[in-house]
Amino acid sequence: MTGTLAVAMIGHSFMGKSHSQAWRTAPRFFDLPLEPEMSVVVGRDAGRAKEAARALGWRDSADDWREVLERDDIDLVDICTPGNTHCEIAVAALQAGKHVLCEKPLANTVEEAERMAAAAAEARERGVVAMAGFTYRRVPAIALARRLVAEGRLGRIHHVRAQYLQDWIVDPEAPLSWRLDKDLAGSGALGDIGAHIVDLAQFVTGDRLAEVVGSLRTFVDERPVATDHAGLSGSAGTERGPVTVDDAASFLGRFAGGAMGVFEATRFATGRKNAIRLEVNGSDGAIAFDFEDMNVLEYFDHREPAGVAGFRRILATEADHPYVAAWWPPGHGLGYEHGFTHQVVDLVEGIAAGEHPAPSFADGLQVQRVLDAVETSSESRAWREVPA
Amino acid sequence: MTGTLAVAMIGHSFMGKSHSQAWRTAPRFFDLPLEPEMSVVVGRDAGRAKEAARALGWRDSADDWREVLERDDIDLVDICTPGNTHCEIAVAALQAGKHVLCEKPLANTVEEAERMAAAAAEARERGVVAMAGFTYRRVPAIALARRLVAEGRLGRIHHVRAQYLQDWIVDPEAPLSWRLDKDLAGSGALGDIGAHIVDLAQFVTGDRLAEVVGSLRTFVDERPVATDHAGLSGSAGTERGPVTVDDAASFLGRFAGGAMGVFEATRFATGRKNAIRLEVNGSDGAIAFDFEDMNVLEYFDHREPAGVAGFRRILATEADHPYVAAWWPPGHGLGYEHGFTHQVVDLVEGIAAGEHPAPSFADGLQVQRVLDAVETSSESRAWREVPA
Amino acid sequence: MTGTLAVAMIGHSFMGKSHSQAWRTAPRFFDLPLEPEMSVVVGRDAGRAKEAARALGWRDSADDWREVLERDDIDLVDICTPGNTHCEIAVAALQAGKHVLCEKPLANTVEEAERMAAAAAEARERGVVAMAGFTYRRVPAIALARRLVAEGRLGRIHHVRAQYLQDWIVDPEAPLSWRLDKDLAGSGALGDIGAHIVDLAQFVTGDRLAEVVGSLRTFVDERPVATDHAGLSGSAGTERGPVTVDDAASFLGRFAGGAMGVFEATRFATGRKNAIRLEVNGSDGAIAFDFEDMNVLEYFDHREPAGVAGFRRILATEADHPYVAAWWPPGHGLGYEHGFTHQVVDLVEGIAAGEHPAPSFADGLQVQRVLDAVETSSESRAWREVPA
Amino acid sequence: MTGTLAVAMIGHSFMGKSHSQAWRTAPRFFDLPLEPEMSVVVGRDAGRAKEAARALGWRDSADDWREVLERDDIDLVDICTPGNTHCEIAVAALQAGKHVLCEKPLANTVEEAERMAAAAAEARERGVVAMAGFTYRRVPAIALARRLVAEGRLGRIHHVRAQYLQDWIVDPEAPLSWRLDKDLAGSGALGDIGAHIVDLAQFVTGDRLAEVVGSLRTFVDERPVATDHAGLSGSAGTERGPVTVDDAASFLGRFAGGAMGVFEATRFATGRKNAIRLEVNGSDGAIAFDFEDMNVLEYFDHREPAGVAGFRRILATEADHPYVAAWWPPGHGLGYEHGFTHQVVDLVEGIAAGEHPAPSFADGLQVQRVLDAVETSSESRAWREVPA
Repeated sequence: MTGTLAVAMIGHSFMGKSHSQAWRTAPRFFDLPLEPEMSVVVGRDAGRAKEAARALGWRDSADDWREVLERDDIDLVDICTPGNTHCEIAVAALQAGKHVLCEKPLANTVEEAERMAAAAAEARERGVVAMAGFTYRRVPAIALARRLVAEGRLGRIHHVRAQYLQDWIVDPEAPLSWRLDKDLAGSGALGDIGAHIVDLAQFVTGDRLAEVVGSLRTFVDERPVATDHAGLSGSAGTERGPVTVDDAASFLGRFAGGAMGVFEATRFATGRKNAIRLEVNGSDGAIAFDFEDMNVLEYFDHREPAGVAGFRRILATEADHPYVAAWWPPGHGLGYEHGFTHQVVDLVEGIAAGEHPAPSFADGLQVQRVLDAVETSSESRAWREVPA
Repeated sequence: MTGTLAVAMIGHSFMGKSHSQAWRTAPRFFDLPLEPEMSVVVGRDAGRAKEAARALGWRDSADDWREVLERDDIDLVDICTPGNTHCEIAVAALQAGKHVLCEKPLANTVEEAERMAAAAAEARERGVVAMAGFTYRRVPAIALARRLVAEGRLGRIHHVRAQYLQDWIVDPEAPLSWRLDKDLAGSGALGDIGAHIVDLAQFVTGDRLAEVVGSLRTFVDERPVATDHAGLSGSAGTERGPVTVDDAASFLGRFAGGAMGVFEATRFATGRKNAIRLEVNGSDGAIAFDFEDMNVLEYFDHREPAGVAGFRRILATEADHPYVAAWWPPGHGLGYEHGFTHQVVDLVEGIAAGEHPAPSFADGLQVQRVLDAVETSSESRAWREVPA
Repeated sequence: MTGTLAVAMIGHSFMGKSHSQAWRTAPRFFDLPLEPEMSVVVGRDAGRAKEAARALGWRDSADDWREVLERDDIDLVDICTPGNTHCEIAVAALQAGKHVLCEKPLANTVEEAERMAAAAAEARERGVVAMAGFTYRRVPAIALARRLVAEGRLGRIHHVRAQYLQDWIVDPEAPLSWRLDKDLAGSGALGDIGAHIVDLAQFVTGDRLAEVVGSLRTFVDERPVATDHAGLSGSAGTERGPVTVDDAASFLGRFAGGAMGVFEATRFATGRKNAIRLEVNGSDGAIAFDFEDMNVLEYFDHREPAGVAGFRRILATEADHPYVAAWWPPGHGLGYEHGFTHQVVDLVEGIAAGEHPAPSFADGLQVQRVLDAVETSSESRAWREVPA
Repeated sequence: MTGTLAVAMIGHSFMGKSHSQAWRTAPRFFDLPLEPEMSVVVGRDAGRAKEAARALGWRDSADDWREVLERDDIDLVDICTPGNTHCEIAVAALQAGKHVLCEKPLANTVEEAERMAAAAAEARERGVVAMAGFTYRRVPAIALARRLVAEGRLGRIHHVRAQYLQDWIVDPEAPLSWRLDKDLAGSGALGDIGAHIVDLAQFVTGDRLAEVVGSLRTFVDERPVATDHAGLSGSAGTERGPVTVDDAASFLGRFAGGAMGVFEATRFATGRKNAIRLEVNGSDGAIAFDFEDMNVLEYFDHREPAGVAGFRRILATEADHPYVAAWWPPGHGLGYEHGFTHQVVDLVEGIAAGEHPAPSFADGLQVQRVLDAVETSSESRAWREVPA
């Protein structure tokens, strides 16, 4: 490594923990062109931020992200806060000349996402990199799926079916965390997890959704207010408050290239914990993935004789699978946080090379437009085009 | 057995072969109250009908179903012809006082289905039984799923996701069989296989679809004309003709009880051969089924402690599973045609008991109304109510 | 069909039921050169035999198999009785010029099996066919496995691991059926189900076990005596009796061609109902099978690039898979009894063609020798050679 | 944390990389009583050791482990070298008063393992901790399996079947790495991976193997000599040398408590990459595990009604599963290296509490005795007792 990259991370909850492990781990397994420095973690509460710095392994802590943006010794700002704050922080950071990694969804509204994409485009002129955090693209099995499609192995794509199924609030007494508050989270299952499958479906197929029709639903209208924010949901108190986001979203889509899409994102799929499922059927083959068995990609080669054809369970742990050579021998699987590590690797390599690794803020904006079209179609009860 | 039940079967192709095996097998494994007699098989071509009688094991053959309806020695008419002929035959048979088993879809149009349901209601007054052939209800694992839901084990139903995935015409040179001709088949994937998942989803949940929004697609517009009709598709000739039905259908649905539904029926899901998949998530549990592993029902009990909860792979081959006691010891699975055998069992028992086993023609009509709403919503590009 | 083949079946319990369905079904799905006639079923108790004839669909019944052997109108004797009676019946039938199908294990002792093999060899000179009933060879996925090995796709075979796992007597109060009585059954798990995996392992690899070392175990020494014999086990009475056979057997084996084998047969594998598992690893590929998912063969092609290699889940329901073309379209699975139907097909075709379909009585004898070597090695606590 | 624990790691190859990640990660996710310091990494080649320190994140490097043992600022020695060096280093380290973590197999011979166990026992008197590195015990799904057995959920154990299947040297041209050299590795598949399944089987059941009979095999006698040692195997040169260890081992075992065991360890199981499989059947239930799907434990509860019983796919990612609360929300799986992190956690907590976490060196010695009995039984071709 020939230089360093000083990182300030804003937010230190679930995503902050994931990103911290990624910044720490990436240089130990990959030969990075720049050495990341875990310089400062930022949180609104100074005491909690200090404790986060100790627990997550950051050199310093701070309670005002604006001050941190003014520091000369910070090269990159990593935004891990709720969606309502992304726009303000990201735009300011880019304007301050900092590279930015911003968690998904890019923003809570299309308007904010547009401002962010504009700021990123402007910053790019100045050599500043902005990247959206759709980390699942960097799970090896998903990156392999993209490779197989890009090689033409699936032929013309006919079908995309994508589901993101969780069940963590199926209990009506599960507390009202910030993720169930529209002001903070923007939307519910749609924005939180639906965003991932929209991104993955478009990433793997290399195509984009052109129109959609969808349905949002809130099964439980009122919940006990959360008293703290540990884990995804926090603990329940005695007060009750309204759920202002969707519990579940389903939608049909038409891809620009003609494929049919069927999407479903829900936090009420009892028994499914983090089932990100993607199946793509083309004229020459198909792939299928489920994050609950994340080291596996299923692949069907339709060009083979029917007598020996079948979905192959590819264990995506071979040295020539994406990202895998840096890790362990075949069959020694990776876990959830490795996608974040790969994200850091691609980001740091991009910065060093003067390139702009995908997904860009423009990509994040486009996902936001799809989500917005789903939401408005749910209200108008008819198909909606997604602006290109 | 205290009497006989003389059967005339109209049609002797794929469905005729399945039904024949069922009529032959049912009395050998189940203690039926009436002994079915495989009296006569009917086909338009006398020679082919005669050959079918020999091959499929019927005592006699005929080439005019109207004449057969006039015979006093026929008790039941089993209709296995394409959908465009169902209405005329069924109504005539019911009027002639014959019990009727009619393959799905009940008819090619709602209007025909209404006439059939009316005829069935009228015949019922006279003690004549009419049953629609949604055979998959009688796969033990599916019947078990229904039992678990009926016992209240799933609680309030939130989600239904159902897919019927095949790939037998993904090749653009696959021939233009009658199943791709709207005049004969009524519709394509929607009516042929979509009908099954609509029926199964409603059967297992005990609820009905109240509104839908859907999309139909024909990926391949023109195909070589089939020269014969062996198997599902026949052989390709050199002449080409237009495909007049849908290759694939997807739709969202809202159930009367509030559950969200996501449905997909396609003949273009490369790698999937007969994947009838149903997953239902409720507040207290979930079930999942895939016909490609048809002896298994997955069941998740959400009331268990999280530490030991998980989808159970129930091998639906135990004596106390529906229909299984008549067959083999645990672990000795059944096959596709057994559902037809169970259909015969329930039908014969119903006739002997003066009861009317589900699904009735009214049930078949209701499925037809759902399919019709999907089709019109696909044209209007907006949600449509399903008449109750 | 140009003639008939009149069958007498001796025994009408579990195997009799399976064989009856096969004799009835085979000519309806396959174009047989001879039409089987289900002439007479034989049982020791005249009343029960008569009831069996009605229930299982045989024209006539009898209570003395010797008299039946003297009848001129019987062409084939199908032996479905316990193993202690096989030798006497089979030898007499062959001497009487009847073709013989004999359920496995061929006999309860090597000595009896030798006599049967000798009788079969002698009968063969006279054009009389004798076949041993290792029906699982004719499950399409297993027949496909054999085909893949025979085509050389696996290369040099290194490993065979085979298990036959059931759990039907894990409950110490499960009754003492004839299958737990050494006088009738010869042995327990070893002969009843271990015989199947020995046959399958040798059949699929095309090799034979040259030496073995094994261990037999009886976990429950005493059980309530069975009062009837329905199903596998019957019902428990109040009297208790000794279990005289093994509950489980495990053994290592060396194949003549050098492969290592690991075998396990047990009725105490809680949760496994009829898990016949076979995995074969060769230098160029591997196959894996589990009867609890009987329509699937897994196949790994080691000659493919590592990046796209993986076990393929071949749904053995394609027209070019063994036996499948006669049945249903792809994805429409078969069940347990279909293997018996295929056995009838191959047997009838063999008889018509003057050929002798495998497995022969000599094959059955060789399996018996393997089982005997396992048993003696269990006593001597050392490896034993299997006579070639 | 109230103090520090300075670590010296000997060896920096595959295991060194795994251990480094564990030392780095453990304090970031778990609230450890002592802060591990990654003080010094030791390798025979000073330049390589220095490079390893940089790549793996150690503060310092050294090329003489004896010198390191003399340093006062080292609290713990972590041994990651080939098995032939374990005894000398571990005994010296314990005598020097250092806590020791030693990779498996504990040693290459029973004699060495005995010396190590004696040294550990003696050191224990002085409050010095020695732990053997059977890391798979700490995969959450395996730890959960142990918990279920310890809770009595499986009842009396009847069967243990364990396999460790890899295929990395099935190609005869795979190079002759140190793992194929008896002088360095002690044994082949038996000691390298067979050791793991012996440990796991005994750990999960809480029982020990009392006698065994086994078979070792070397399928490929000669291979190209490796020119470097990257990854598991290195690159092949032109010179050839003899393979002096086993390619595969299989053995039967009898547990002291009466259970039957079947074991298989091989590097020739084409298609299996790191398939550590364990299935245990007891009178009341069963568990099954496969490391290729490492976040899942299958559990069958035999006390449930047969109609709803089935193997449950428990996703071992819930907060109340062992080790999981420190990581991610449900459904967000862990990877291979997490077991090493958990090992560090238990070790550090043990040291701080003055306790001695399992597996001890005595446990490692006992595994060695099992492996030795397998090897000698393979030579004598008869069962061998394992000294208690």
